[in-house]
Amino acid sequence: MSDPSAPHLLLGCCDYPEHVPETLWASYAQRQRAAGLSFSRIAEFAWSRMEPRPGEYDWAWLDRAVEAYHAAGLRVVLCTPTATPPAWLIRAHPEILAYDDQGRMREFGSRRHYDFASPVYRAHSQRITRALAERYGKHPAVAGWQTDNEFGCHGTSRSYGGASAAAFPGWLRARYGTLDALNGAWGNVFWSMEYSDWSQIRPPILTVTEPNPAHVLDYARFSSDLIRDFQAEQVAVLRECSPGRFVTHNFMIFESGFDHYRVAEGLDFVTWDNYPLGMLEFFAPPGTGEALKLRYAGTGHPDLISFNHDLYRGLLASPGLGREGPGTPNGFWVMEQQCGPVNWAPYNPVPELGAVALWTAQAWAHGADVVSYFRWRAATMAQEVMHSGLLRHDGEPDQGLAEVAAFDPAPCRTGEVPARVALLHDYESLWLYDVQRHSASLSYWTQVLTFYSALRSLGIDVDVISADRDLSGYAVIVAPAVTLMTPERAARWAQAVEAGARLMCGPRTAFRAPGGGAWESGQFGPLQALVGVKLRRYDSLRPGLTRQVSGGFEAEAWAESYELHGAEVQHTYESGPLSGQVAVTRRGGVTVIGAYSPALVRHVLHSVLQEAGLDLLDLPEGVRVSRRAGQTLVQNWTQDTVTWAGQAVGPVQFLFQGARADNLG
Amino acid sequence: MSDPSAPHLLLGCCDYPEHVPETLWASYAQRQRAAGLSFSRIAEFAWSRMEPRPGEYDWAWLDRAVEAYHAAGLRVVLCTPTATPPAWLIRAHPEILAYDDQGRMREFGSRRHYDFASPVYRAHSQRITRALAERYGKHPAVAGWQTDNEFGCHGTSRSYGGASAAAFPGWLRARYGTLDALNGAWGNVFWSMEYSDWSQIRPPILTVTEPNPAHVLDYARFSSDLIRDFQAEQVAVLRECSPGRFVTHNFMIFESGFDHYRVAEGLDFVTWDNYPLGMLEFFAPPGTGEALKLRYAGTGHPDLISFNHDLYRGLLASPGLGREGPGTPNGFWVMEQQCGPVNWAPYNPVPELGAVALWTAQAWAHGADVVSYFRWRAATMAQEVMHSGLLRHDGEPDQGLAEVAAFDPAPCRTGEVPARVALLHDYESLWLYDVQRHSASLSYWTQVLTFYSALRSLGIDVDVISADRDLSGYAVIVAPAVTLMTPERAARWAQAVEAGARLMCGPRTAFRAPGGGAWESGQFGPLQALVGVKLRRYDSLRPGLTRQVSGGFEAEAWAESYELHGAEVQHTYESGPLSGQVAVTRRGGVTVIGAYSPALVRHVLHSVLQEAGLDLLDLPEGVRVSRRAGQTLVQNWTQDTVTWAGQAVGPVQFLFQGARADNLG
Amino acid sequence: MSDPSAPHLLLGCCDYPEHVPETLWASYAQRQRAAGLSFSRIAEFAWSRMEPRPGEYDWAWLDRAVEAYHAAGLRVVLCTPTATPPAWLIRAHPEILAYDDQGRMREFGSRRHYDFASPVYRAHSQRITRALAERYGKHPAVAGWQTDNEFGCHGTSRSYGGASAAAFPGWLRARYGTLDALNGAWGNVFWSMEYSDWSQIRPPILTVTEPNPAHVLDYARFSSDLIRDFQAEQVAVLRECSPGRFVTHNFMIFESGFDHYRVAEGLDFVTWDNYPLGMLEFFAPPGTGEALKLRYAGTGHPDLISFNHDLYRGLLASPGLGREGPGTPNGFWVMEQQCGPVNWAPYNPVPELGAVALWTAQAWAHGADVVSYFRWRAATMAQEVMHSGLLRHDGEPDQGLAEVAAFDPAPCRTGEVPARVALLHDYESLWLYDVQRHSASLSYWTQVLTFYSALRSLGIDVDVISADRDLSGYAVIVAPAVTLMTPERAARWAQAVEAGARLMCGPRTAFRAPGGGAWESGQFGPLQALVGVKLRRYDSLRPGLTRQVSGGFEAEAWAESYELHGAEVQHTYESGPLSGQVAVTRRGGVTVIGAYSPALVRHVLHSVLQEAGLDLLDLPEGVRVSRRAGQTLVQNWTQDTVTWAGQAVGPVQFLFQGARADNLG
Repeated sequence: MSDPSAPHLLLGCCDYPEHVPETLWASYAQRQRAAGLSFSRIAEFAWSRMEPRPGEYDWAWLDRAVEAYHAAGLRVVLCTPTATPPAWLIRAHPEILAYDDQGRMREFGSRRHYDFASPVYRAHSQRITRALAERYGKHPAVAGWQTDNEFGCHGTSRSYGGASAAAFPGWLRARYGTLDALNGAWGNVFWSMEYSDWSQIRPPILTVTEPNPAHVLDYARFSSDLIRDFQAEQVAVLRECSPGRFVTHNFMIFESGFDHYRVAEGLDFVTWDNYPLGMLEFFAPPGTGEALKLRYAGTGHPDLISFNHDLYRGLLASPGLGREGPGTPNGFWVMEQQCGPVNWAPYNPVPELGAVALWTAQAWAHGADVVSYFRWRAATMAQEVMHSGLLRHDGEPDQGLAEVAAFDPAPCRTGEVPARVALLHDYESLWLYDVQRHSASLSYWTQVLTFYSALRSLGIDVDVISADRDLSGYAVIVAPAVTLMTPERAARWAQAVEAGARLMCGPRTAFRAPGGGAWESGQFGPLQALVGVKLRRYDSLRPGLTRQVSGGFEAEAWAESYELHGAEVQHTYESGPLSGQVAVTRRGGVTVIGAYSPALVRHVLHSVLQEAGLDLLDLPEGVRVSRRAGQTLVQNWTQDTVTWAGQAVGPVQFLFQGARADNLG
Repeated sequence: MSDPSAPHLLLGCCDYPEHVPETLWASYAQRQRAAGLSFSRIAEFAWSRMEPRPGEYDWAWLDRAVEAYHAAGLRVVLCTPTATPPAWLIRAHPEILAYDDQGRMREFGSRRHYDFASPVYRAHSQRITRALAERYGKHPAVAGWQTDNEFGCHGTSRSYGGASAAAFPGWLRARYGTLDALNGAWGNVFWSMEYSDWSQIRPPILTVTEPNPAHVLDYARFSSDLIRDFQAEQVAVLRECSPGRFVTHNFMIFESGFDHYRVAEGLDFVTWDNYPLGMLEFFAPPGTGEALKLRYAGTGHPDLISFNHDLYRGLLASPGLGREGPGTPNGFWVMEQQCGPVNWAPYNPVPELGAVALWTAQAWAHGADVVSYFRWRAATMAQEVMHSGLLRHDGEPDQGLAEVAAFDPAPCRTGEVPARVALLHDYESLWLYDVQRHSASLSYWTQVLTFYSALRSLGIDVDVISADRDLSGYAVIVAPAVTLMTPERAARWAQAVEAGARLMCGPRTAFRAPGGGAWESGQFGPLQALVGVKLRRYDSLRPGLTRQVSGGFEAEAWAESYELHGAEVQHTYESGPLSGQVAVTRRGGVTVIGAYSPALVRHVLHSVLQEAGLDLLDLPEGVRVSRRAGQTLVQNWTQDTVTWAGQAVGPVQFLFQGARADNLG
Repeated sequence: MSDPSAPHLLLGCCDYPEHVPETLWASYAQRQRAAGLSFSRIAEFAWSRMEPRPGEYDWAWLDRAVEAYHAAGLRVVLCTPTATPPAWLIRAHPEILAYDDQGRMREFGSRRHYDFASPVYRAHSQRITRALAERYGKHPAVAGWQTDNEFGCHGTSRSYGGASAAAFPGWLRARYGTLDALNGAWGNVFWSMEYSDWSQIRPPILTVTEPNPAHVLDYARFSSDLIRDFQAEQVAVLRECSPGRFVTHNFMIFESGFDHYRVAEGLDFVTWDNYPLGMLEFFAPPGTGEALKLRYAGTGHPDLISFNHDLYRGLLASPGLGREGPGTPNGFWVMEQQCGPVNWAPYNPVPELGAVALWTAQAWAHGADVVSYFRWRAATMAQEVMHSGLLRHDGEPDQGLAEVAAFDPAPCRTGEVPARVALLHDYESLWLYDVQRHSASLSYWTQVLTFYSALRSLGIDVDVISADRDLSGYAVIVAPAVTLMTPERAARWAQAVEAGARLMCGPRTAFRAPGGGAWESGQFGPLQALVGVKLRRYDSLRPGLTRQVSGGFEAEAWAESYELHGAEVQHTYESGPLSGQVAVTRRGGVTVIGAYSPALVRHVLHSVLQEAGLDLLDLPEGVRVSRRAGQTLVQNWTQDTVTWAGQAVGPVQFLFQGARADNLG
């Protein structure tokens, strides 16, 4: 049914040869290859083995490890080990350590114990990167590089003291030029917070009550830039020493600490770490609760996972080198794919039978070119002793390995996801939304996922892209929560609408100006002409307090109303102090929805999509359809067999629509 | 119906001209006047504009602002800007900063970032006060002064390090004279906590387990005295430089950090900041839960609000200068009245239509002579960007302004609240109660509000006054939770009873001696002769654990039993280990109730009030009646029309009983 | 019915003469004797009175106090006062203070404010112990000594800075010899955490994410050794200066901070502090919730209490001197027995009538030779002002005293508890289990109590003993949660099984190697040959997520499955991803249960006990049977009369089975 020679999904795993006796290396590499894996990511946290003492490098063990993979026919992804500076470096230079948001130094003894701003650490980061890249940069087994590991993990995006605190005023000076400009942009007159000297400015912590959100916003921008610069230094070294090899980074689920669009610049493609079950504990989909967490406890929720796939697929406007060099597929990877229980959530269930295969197929259908499982063998030591791998603690195969070995990637051909709908995402809006939520039930991610889940339940393929990306070619543009608006952004959206795209905006869109304050002209600031409305009032509703909306809908958590300035009324509030006021408007191809209501969001989206001529489905709960490279993957995330388009799909199973599935018996 | 020339309620607002372009000042002042406002409070946090650099004053902008209000016919309330010392002062003198109860310095970057004990800050506080008062003290537009802003807000009543820590031993020495006296008063022998040198004594934080409650009590007294002294220094300057103008301070809802009776001494009248909806999130009335928070989400609870009115009305034994100078009405003000959503609660709903008018009328009925709305225009910047005003972010009128402009204050004549019942309140009792609650369901405020709400549901007007105030003239005295008893206090109560007043005491009354320990003779210490009982046992009950009380009542959370020493039994316990023991007693005009039970409290109060010859009502849920200056204001706080005394009152509406309401259509 | 001259339970109390006027001492001692008490524990926190200033001892008051007890015929237990170093010592040597797990110095002002590692404090501890022991060591009234008070209370087992931090590297060096050994044992290669110098090692706090569990484990071992050494220094002084007197310590309920087996070495017998009602708030029995907390609110739960009795009874392999010198009964004591409400739980109810007597009888039935009530008179001062005593605040008898005075200890003869079942307990397993619970619903204690409660509900007397104790003589050995396995331990268990004992292991048994990691060979490591199974998978289940187990059972929170290597299947999983896999196995006399299910645990235990020939009961909820010295104590912990073995037992009452109870009317 499929051509095995066509480029298709490849598999890999994350391996740590330094965690097991060397006598096992050759057989482990061979078993990986035998299981159908093509890549092994290694050396991720091995600095103390590469350089046991200052300046004393030990490459012998790593030479032998790389050779073992090479001999087995595996390609190796090497990591710069900078997520774990060794004890000798930290004790010699404690100024490398970061500070938490309580002002405390974050100690050595786990990982990510460094401040991105530390000049000392910057030098050591480049030094160890260079040493590693010079040694292995041109080795035939080396396919590419991963920088560091999971920027921002454990709240490490920002350091609130030490090197970062010292560098902040300089960054502000470069941004604003004068203190008058800064004081004006931040609105520091508000509580006499005006600065008269750059040196007076500190990180926004330990203030008597909440700090200025503009202060918080700029600290987030500053910290994000530090990560970008830190990585760029490593990338430059890797480009120099390892030509023709890709450079990437493994990002995280819903990580909010930095602007991923800016940090990813300069990479060839991005990768992310997909842990569906742990994710479900921390990021529940909207409109749900404990019942839903139970229903998806063994599979994770499809939309939480695919949202991240779609976001990372759209992170780079134009990818570079591919997985096997120039001209090879350069789609994103799942660098770490859960293949058994994790250890870091309050509860860490065993995945349902079939879930590892389902996750793999879904990743492909949303654009992944490689899925790499974490990890080969469960660690018998240290922080992750309870975490599973493809092999158990005793080295025997675990259930995940059985599913991986049985997975046939041949039908999973590389190619495009045919999305006609763009969902706009913006980290600055995320920061501003979450620093002043005003309604404790809502967050940026919750609001965004409400729109995303509605789209997915209608069978729509979605590109999640930057709110500043080129929008040409999209039939529908959804801006669920882009609360920060710039004139340039507004102009780009207007241009897209003029070109025929439909635009739908969610609550709080364009409430904020770039400095972080509200627009003096009120919401929607520079977007007003396009949407044809102004904000009238916004209501924040405690759980149990709802407002009727015409058409039989019910707003919860948030309700904003509008004055018409060119738009027409679509829905109005029918209860509460906003009764009779406007909840949903439309001006030409532009729709604004001010009521937070998952059902209303889906209803309005349905109309917009239909008018745009898109084919809509009405998918049952737990069934999802994803399209890529001419194929349609039907996924059943429930515990029961479902029938879709005439085909039965078993529990936690998938199939290629219209074709007899290769992966099913 | 009413004589418009008689003194009546006046309105005002809080304005921040420095937050908007100067081009708007004149029109804003005129619009305020047109909306019926008489006062504008300004310059509250404007230190960095008054003195942009050390010693460099800039009055030009403020001169023009004051003139703008003056030209429009508004009177101005000026504020000392000491709640927000500017960055240049803090960075030059970091010793001004306070310390939190975790021992951390509280940083610059918001407001209230100072330690009341700092000698450096004390000097600067007087200096800026003098400079401001010399400039504007005799300006015809200046009606009076507000000191600082909201003492104690954000937990700033106490600093646990720095200047306060240094001053504490001296305060103790002045209070106790000798260490033997201090060790004895605190009971320091208990865990070998005896001090042998004054310098050994620190603030009561970071101890291995809880600190000595006597230590906590004296730290609260000490900190309260610091606030009193800090303000007194400003008041002295203002008296000197601004003769004939009132001096006040804007206190807060249920603020517990200092002894308001002592801090208010020397002011002309007090004001407070009334935010009914935010208040409801943090201070739910007793016997309630989520259902009640939903019911009153858009109005706030009437008793939470009026309790604060009644407390602040009774804060000063004898007010001084009035709102427009000597001889003018000198009742309390609401200095900041919510007029739309706030931004600082977990949920911040839009008020119900009519709520702003209802709050205004209620404030008057409980004694307010001025109601001043916060704020004129919603800030477009900084920490309060989500907070509403009378104008929206875009400068257009919001709903609150419509209600304010339509409000006719003429019938709201100034005059007395005819209260025959005194409810006794005591900050030292509050501190002792809450530092050792013994039953997590109860607090001082909860217990006090249980008695207050019972009184209000019976249609009773209440004076909330200091437990040490002169009690002559009251028919009934209610002491819900005066747990600290002194011989002087006991004598004063006995004198009132002898003079014919009835007294009712709640659980834990007179359990504590002035040092903070229990009376060696047991509860009720020096009050025993008057009440005629001694404590037998006290029981602390987890939610769901209740005790039957004779008459069909049920104690929850707390049950104490008594031995009779002259009193008679009124109610007994009928279940649990206290079964058969005495729950409520009476000796002559003195009743003691030991069971926490809202229904029993109301039942017993009913009898006491009836015997005292007071007229009682049986008000439906959400209906309240308040009397002032010969009028009776009927308030409907529910979402449905109710009929009271033959008159229909619409949802969230009020009327003057017996008269056709001026404010209703 | 009983011989009053036979050795039987004696009673006592805790008294603080320094808390009351000296004029009361003689009468208080006489009243204690009149109430049937034999012992008074004194001088527990009296350092500031013994030594008011450095080196100035004041013994006069204590001389008179000891004489007062002596004159009344009471024996005195003296305490070293080291739980409360006085202010002068702390301010002179702040390096004595400990640090909390947030890195903050723990201040003076309550108790236990010292670091066990402080060399300065060690010297002062020995000095004050010697001074006290020299003064009173041979006094005829002195029966024995209590060291310090409640080691570990308020989280003081470990100090995370200062002296402890400084001592840790040396302890590690002594344990491991080389850094290679340490790095290997901890698995420090995992995240490049390898140390190259001993001085690089710090306490395991403030790390960016969780520290290495091996690091945590060794810090717990190290801190435990410090406590052992600290106490041993005092014991040596007491042995030298007070020959023939016992030395003990009062341990706490479920205290987990140190290895009690090691710390107790060198004591004559142990004592513990039994607060059944406060305990219930913090340590609910398994499988329960709010309903059960309400049901036992006035009595405490029998199994929580008796578990601690059984644990402390088995703490010392061979006790030394007895309560009245050599050859006298040397069973454990309850040093502090609740006799009214405590003050330290969120809710502090009054005990049910009869509860104090019931607790006393139960303590005896589980092996206590002395029960000593806390405290004689309720303190009128300081931190425990809300805590009750046998006397009230006013010096009058409280309910507890009535029950104590009525209690006839004559039938409570000293002697053996005839336990045939050993439940194995291990502090290192506790630490490892709890540092990586993997399922938030479970803890070491919860799992252990599930097995213990099942045994007690079957009427079984249980010895709770160290997992390394000699096991000869036991018919059944239960290892509920011994997750750390050593080859020596495995060998000892195998020997016991070979000798005919039955062994039952719970989930996670033998998962860990001594370093803290998993066994490279997988669970069960060196125990595998004995149990005949290997671990297959472990599942962590959120509340509401359960797995069917054959026989009609349901696993919750945890489910592990096995591969058979010699064992036979007893139960299998019937739902979820482990469906069809093995849940319970048996190999000869060895049973392994991998599913957490209280009902299944009881079912399997029932079979094992029955096969071992033990007599089983089926006790109703709240009824317990305990045997000692030939008697059987039947206890009714419910609020209703129950009938057991033909005898009616009233609510909160007990009787001696087969005999008419002495204590009942």
